[in-house]
Amino acid sequence: MNIKGKPYRTIWVAPDGWSVEIIDQTRLPHELAIVSLKTLQDAARAIKTMQVRGAPLIGATAAYGVCLALRADASDEALDDAIALLAEQRPTAINLRWALDEMGRAVRNLPRQRRVAAAYARAAELCEADVATNRRIGEHGLKAILDAAERKKPGERVNVLTHCNAGWLACVDVGTATAPIYAAHNRGVPLHVWVDETRPRNQGAALTAFELGAHGVPHTIVVDNAGGHLMQRGLVDLCIVGADRVTANGDVANKIGTYLKALAAHDNGVPFYAALPSSTVDWSLDDGVREIP
Amino acid sequence: MNIKGKPYRTIWVAPDGWSVEIIDQTRLPHELAIVSLKTLQDAARAIKTMQVRGAPLIGATAAYGVCLALRADASDEALDDAIALLAEQRPTAINLRWALDEMGRAVRNLPRQRRVAAAYARAAELCEADVATNRRIGEHGLKAILDAAERKKPGERVNVLTHCNAGWLACVDVGTATAPIYAAHNRGVPLHVWVDETRPRNQGAALTAFELGAHGVPHTIVVDNAGGHLMQRGLVDLCIVGADRVTANGDVANKIGTYLKALAAHDNGVPFYAALPSSTVDWSLDDGVREIP
Repeated sequence: MNIKGKPYRTIWVAPDGWSVEIIDQTRLPHELAIVSLKTLQDAARAIKTMQVRGAPLIGATAAYGVCLALRADASDEALDDAIALLAEQRPTAINLRWALDEMGRAVRNLPRQRRVAAAYARAAELCEADVATNRRIGEHGLKAILDAAERKKPGERVNVLTHCNAGWLACVDVGTATAPIYAAHNRGVPLHVWVDETRPRNQGAALTAFELGAHGVPHTIVVDNAGGHLMQRGLVDLCIVGADRVTANGDVANKIGTYLKALAAHDNGVPFYAALPSSTVDWSLDDGVREIP
Repeated sequence: MNIKGKPYRTIWVAPDGWSVEIIDQTRLPHELAIVSLKTLQDAARAIKTMQVRGAPLIGATAAYGVCLALRADASDEALDDAIALLAEQRPTAINLRWALDEMGRAVRNLPRQRRVAAAYARAAELCEADVATNRRIGEHGLKAILDAAERKKPGERVNVLTHCNAGWLACVDVGTATAPIYAAHNRGVPLHVWVDETRPRNQGAALTAFELGAHGVPHTIVVDNAGGHLMQRGLVDLCIVGADRVTANGDVANKIGTYLKALAAHDNGVPFYAALPSSTVDWSLDDGVREIP
């Protein structure tokens, strides 16, 4: 999406054709710092120190980390070492493991001299697939915002509440929970986003508010305690959040505090959506998880 | 209650018999700073700058502010000016207005030379009444904690969740929401308090955690988002909060975020109590306020 009118993604190959650039998210919202990744170690450090975060972006960074590793040494041993090193930077990130598996599959059966090009091609494909998926989430979710807009008086804006950052900064672009918001905003639907601060790490205040502001979407940061009060006062038309994991029976696990907002939405008849790609559903989990109404 | 084994109140007359001492609550939890109030202006400033806060303590400070004013000038005009000045330091605090009315009634019909002594006597009575009321709240609430303790296995502690500061620092001593907690702790009931951080002003993290720790009550500060998760996991046995105002039909208005915790308690079958003196009930309000389940 845009930062002050200029389109950005969270990760891209530099004009030199091989080094990789990212936005250092630990510096946001105060500074837009672009960091260049030139080695496997650079990519591993970016994941470890949370310069990149969000499941899809961690996966994309790991994919390019494999590219950078193979560029230095395209042997089987170097490939295995790179995958092992990157995987251990965030042991709980299922998307990281998935992206590394994809990269391994894409290059392992190729002769060494073709591995680097194949790796860059596959990493780019993974990024494009993430963006395409999120755009489709945006198209689906747009309906919910348009429905809400129809219930507003002329000139009134649709108020959306979101929790944490499931925005383009967590992905390669567009975001999941933010995808319908950007889709509606870009087509001229007047809207305003209540951005939960999201304690304890403040991803809402630091990241979601930054990206909405940079793209020009009207928004207000609120403390996590405020959502229920806003819903009681009719100031929230719908809630959209992301999801860390969804069980086979539809239970949603997401950032702490999501449950409290879901309860308040239920109590006040406010529609509540979790926006996610199908890869977030873990079909191996089908019970034992507390349902979020 | 105690600070490191030494009993304190939030406001008291100094050994000189006339100046008034308070704990500067803007310096907590980092520093225990005692401030001496020697003039009407000192008392007004303490209220305005939130060195004292909490409805009962604001009232007590205003009462002593009238004492200090009369000590300098016991005329009708000085009394009226003092009451007017103190009232405007916190126009929304109903308890402030009530305490000033009480002080006016106590001294206005007396000859000037008896006014100062009568004012100090009445201010002390107001303070003692607050403490006595809170001790009775503690006795009532103790039953709820003992009930919860009976449901625990031997050696397990009772987990109480509280939001904001309705502790002794908000009162003259004992507190309202904390009164049952101190009553149970002082009688040896093993308990542990989840202290909501209470954004945006952090009264839980700065004040409630300080006073519980200083008195020796086991506790943990949690972000406001965490309460629902703790309740889902069976880690909260009961919730006790204070109240800013209660309507005639029992609706409770309290610090923002209380509603979300009440919803989560309801959803998880956790008992939820608002602890308050009868003076918090505003019988003029009987509808139009959203009910907190």
